[in-house]
Amino acid sequence: MSKYVLGHNQYGKAENRIVKVTRKGNDGSWHEIRDLNVSVALRGDFRDVHLSGDNAHCLPTDTTKNTVYAFGKEHGIDSPEAFGIRLAKHFVSSQDPIREAQIRIEEFAWERIPVPTRRKQHSFVLSGREVRTAQVTYSETTGLQVISGLKDLTVMNSTNSEFHGYVKDEYTTLREAYDRILATKVTARWAHSALAADDPEHDWDRSYTKVRTHLLDAFAQTYSYSLQQTLHQMCERVLDHCPRVNEVRLNLPNKHHFLVDLEPFGLKNDNEVYFAADRPYGLIEGTVHREGVQPVIATSDWIVA
Amino acid sequence: MSKYVLGHNQYGKAENRIVKVTRKGNDGSWHEIRDLNVSVALRGDFRDVHLSGDNAHCLPTDTTKNTVYAFGKEHGIDSPEAFGIRLAKHFVSSQDPIREAQIRIEEFAWERIPVPTRRKQHSFVLSGREVRTAQVTYSETTGLQVISGLKDLTVMNSTNSEFHGYVKDEYTTLREAYDRILATKVTARWAHSALAADDPEHDWDRSYTKVRTHLLDAFAQTYSYSLQQTLHQMCERVLDHCPRVNEVRLNLPNKHHFLVDLEPFGLKNDNEVYFAADRPYGLIEGTVHREGVQPVIATSDWIVA
Amino acid sequence: MSKYVLGHNQYGKAENRIVKVTRKGNDGSWHEIRDLNVSVALRGDFRDVHLSGDNAHCLPTDTTKNTVYAFGKEHGIDSPEAFGIRLAKHFVSSQDPIREAQIRIEEFAWERIPVPTRRKQHSFVLSGREVRTAQVTYSETTGLQVISGLKDLTVMNSTNSEFHGYVKDEYTTLREAYDRILATKVTARWAHSALAADDPEHDWDRSYTKVRTHLLDAFAQTYSYSLQQTLHQMCERVLDHCPRVNEVRLNLPNKHHFLVDLEPFGLKNDNEVYFAADRPYGLIEGTVHREGVQPVIATSDWIVA
Amino acid sequence: MSKYVLGHNQYGKAENRIVKVTRKGNDGSWHEIRDLNVSVALRGDFRDVHLSGDNAHCLPTDTTKNTVYAFGKEHGIDSPEAFGIRLAKHFVSSQDPIREAQIRIEEFAWERIPVPTRRKQHSFVLSGREVRTAQVTYSETTGLQVISGLKDLTVMNSTNSEFHGYVKDEYTTLREAYDRILATKVTARWAHSALAADDPEHDWDRSYTKVRTHLLDAFAQTYSYSLQQTLHQMCERVLDHCPRVNEVRLNLPNKHHFLVDLEPFGLKNDNEVYFAADRPYGLIEGTVHREGVQPVIATSDWIVA
Repeated sequence: MSKYVLGHNQYGKAENRIVKVTRKGNDGSWHEIRDLNVSVALRGDFRDVHLSGDNAHCLPTDTTKNTVYAFGKEHGIDSPEAFGIRLAKHFVSSQDPIREAQIRIEEFAWERIPVPTRRKQHSFVLSGREVRTAQVTYSETTGLQVISGLKDLTVMNSTNSEFHGYVKDEYTTLREAYDRILATKVTARWAHSALAADDPEHDWDRSYTKVRTHLLDAFAQTYSYSLQQTLHQMCERVLDHCPRVNEVRLNLPNKHHFLVDLEPFGLKNDNEVYFAADRPYGLIEGTVHREGVQPVIATSDWIVA
Repeated sequence: MSKYVLGHNQYGKAENRIVKVTRKGNDGSWHEIRDLNVSVALRGDFRDVHLSGDNAHCLPTDTTKNTVYAFGKEHGIDSPEAFGIRLAKHFVSSQDPIREAQIRIEEFAWERIPVPTRRKQHSFVLSGREVRTAQVTYSETTGLQVISGLKDLTVMNSTNSEFHGYVKDEYTTLREAYDRILATKVTARWAHSALAADDPEHDWDRSYTKVRTHLLDAFAQTYSYSLQQTLHQMCERVLDHCPRVNEVRLNLPNKHHFLVDLEPFGLKNDNEVYFAADRPYGLIEGTVHREGVQPVIATSDWIVA
Repeated sequence: MSKYVLGHNQYGKAENRIVKVTRKGNDGSWHEIRDLNVSVALRGDFRDVHLSGDNAHCLPTDTTKNTVYAFGKEHGIDSPEAFGIRLAKHFVSSQDPIREAQIRIEEFAWERIPVPTRRKQHSFVLSGREVRTAQVTYSETTGLQVISGLKDLTVMNSTNSEFHGYVKDEYTTLREAYDRILATKVTARWAHSALAADDPEHDWDRSYTKVRTHLLDAFAQTYSYSLQQTLHQMCERVLDHCPRVNEVRLNLPNKHHFLVDLEPFGLKNDNEVYFAADRPYGLIEGTVHREGVQPVIATSDWIVA
Repeated sequence: MSKYVLGHNQYGKAENRIVKVTRKGNDGSWHEIRDLNVSVALRGDFRDVHLSGDNAHCLPTDTTKNTVYAFGKEHGIDSPEAFGIRLAKHFVSSQDPIREAQIRIEEFAWERIPVPTRRKQHSFVLSGREVRTAQVTYSETTGLQVISGLKDLTVMNSTNSEFHGYVKDEYTTLREAYDRILATKVTARWAHSALAADDPEHDWDRSYTKVRTHLLDAFAQTYSYSLQQTLHQMCERVLDHCPRVNEVRLNLPNKHHFLVDLEPFGLKNDNEVYFAADRPYGLIEGTVHREGVQPVIATSDWIVA
């Protein structure tokens, strides 16, 4: 017995790297690949594991790893979300002490290397552009929650960005900008409605492509007066076009590009030469969701009652 | 106007790297340094910044950066927590639209390089052992919340760890272990009571050293039947010895050390030669808190109503 | 005076991040960007700087940084190689003690985000696929040496790779493979002839695209019996098609994909489900050059007289 | 047959992570650990492997990995250098096509966690301070070459550093400094004489500790007019005190700490508050060696005939 309370706890195997090759065509010479990094977290009745080291309720993390690979073979990988849903439901339904499972997946995209022979398609190059993410949580009591996302999508507008009219206090030295570079490395997450999550026919890949396109479009087409405004436009655009998405959260580091002072060298820098800085960086984060919807995407906030 | 709801949002300047030199002694030849990475996040009434790009409520992130450096000079850096409290209160009290500020700090420890002359102490070597962390949140309505912590503290027991008696299902292949290496890279966070947070005399450095020592002691002295059990012992130990700490949360990746099979080479591996694996790794997370206390340390959980 | 010999030494400013925007079209609304990371190393007569701290021969690294940005404005950035040539020659010709300068450049590629308006082209997304590299060395005595390259280009063949017939000794346990995944993260460097280096009209961008295409083609089209064989084919292909390239060196980590044993779960793994391992990895490195040419690309070798 | 020349080539298994536990005392309850990252590179007659994929001369990289672990058990790990010597000689002597082997080792240091019971010593904490390195090359024809080193040792002097009297050209804006912070992350390599390399009794651990101490002492005790001067002092000090070390090479990034301008806030910054910058950074590299000795430590130089 402990005089203290065991609060939120979870365990599992993180970062299981699985690559799945699917052979198509009459002779199987058309290959498709999916390349995932799968993390499993289990929640439930693990009190004795913590208090006495009695492992009778503990499914080893090694077993959860095996399950990821076995499911890759048994059920294939239609999409990160579908794979995550299958895994999450399995752990909760197959083991009594497990009440909730959360599967987090990163997907690395590969593109074909063009080859002259049409059929022999088995060569790929890693598209380093962004990492697709999915977080699936299945709970015995509250059911399924699917959050899709992406990270490391770096974008830049070389004009059409201003920043002025802000508060000035005694520590303000920033000059107002009427034409600046706006660059950010997008981390996006969007929560799907129960309608989508519970629909076995939901096309997760198509949904992903659609959201990604709208995020890029909104970034490119917004004349920006603040990165917050761009963030809001990006979220709105997704909600406007994707009826089964209920909530969008963006994390946008402002990757500062500072105009270099070339005057000491007798040169005029007419918004041409920039120093790309590492740290510090502005960090703009925000959620936009539909009315009447309870936001579910985790923030870095402090949890209050 | 937007037909959607602007939910949780915050902005600020992340990763302001500040190094502060303090000169002591009659001739100032005894130097002390503090080396911090300070991130600022502001929350409040920023609706117009998002909806129309009207920045009248927006204190630039650049100003928050300037404030960090100016406060370093004006008030010094007694500890990460004290510095964070001062900054958080400043932003909330000085700007009307700012209702809440969160300061996150990493501190890098330096140790003296011993030199023969006793007084001229200005040479240091970076102790790469762990990073000290602090998260201070000050809200107009709910006051001060201080969470201290550390990360990247890697520890190992080369024996006194077992793992058996666990659930076996159809995907289980793991063999039970009666003597294994237990290694983990500790991320720890602990929440202080309001008594500590609101006490201007609270010795945050001493508190840090004490918690760190108890975490290490508990890790070293626990005969472990599961990493969860070790986690719980470490949390309990801190709560037992630090009356002003209300809650402890640990994130313990299980850094697997696999016994190498040397039989093909006619050799017996009597728990001597291990392969240290990178991925996947077990990941054990848990919170232990005092009875009657509302946990405040963020988890990677999904937020439910 | 020192009783020891000051051997090879160099200094400079590393990792100057410069982004250059060029406005084209009648109204300047068509933007082009180049995004470089430029490192400068200077060699020459710096004996006194080392022995006595007399800096009379020392051009500050800060000045070399300024020169990078000023040259970006004054001369533009036609290509990493052309920019590097200009910088290297400048340092050697403008300062007497500097006898040799080496400029190393990484270029990050950006692609346009498609927008409906044809003219307003100022939105970009970072293509994370590979980093282009260039190393230009200019010496008072031996002239110009240009080495182009790329790194972080990750490629995979999901079949058409075998490995067998190798040496077996007492420590060999590897099973022969007749169908395996071959994946690697290519680091390539290729040295240009003096004809190319000294030709002010040489089209470095076109040359880069050509080499890159041949590397990818050769990787995709080689039926491989060893990664060394694939390496050699890739090098040969470049030398065959690019007459002004004299030497190619590849560094190919063998990114192992291990077939997961699914038999314990009653499943057959017919080259479908793989575990992508991190460490250790095979590392295959090699240079192929034209006859009669002195190789110039640095290896990780030990330098012998 | 190829019409081109196969130049420098090598292959092997990189980053084999081995942890070795040694039990001492009557009951084996006093544990010692060595934690290494071992990379193997083999050179020799591998022409056919490259040209035709004939692997008859190819010892698989998997076998070299097995050898590392088996040798850990068979011979123990006295020091990174001794372990590397044994491995390098083994590959060259046991396989005819292998003419030269290079072993590169990183060692991660662990320190004991103090526990009350004197005998049960099996708890450790990772000392993140620096990584010890060793590079051993054994060649059939030229014998043994041992280069020891360290990396990631970050040091700072908060005063006793000046920088002035340097060349000013049209791109110079730097102000002369008469009191600055000097900070660097040391990468050091030192080559041992044949006397040391061939002496089976040479105490490599003691030698390492001695060189490391002299590097730190020289850094701390040098009043610096340039980082080059500090570099030279550090090298000299090692050569002065370690007669079996023939050559020292240092790679010293100048980790800039910029004094923050606090005047806009009505504050004087008397060398107290610094901004620690990431990029760009100065990079100072140099070799100092004994007279009559051929330097052997690789530089980033371009190799000329």
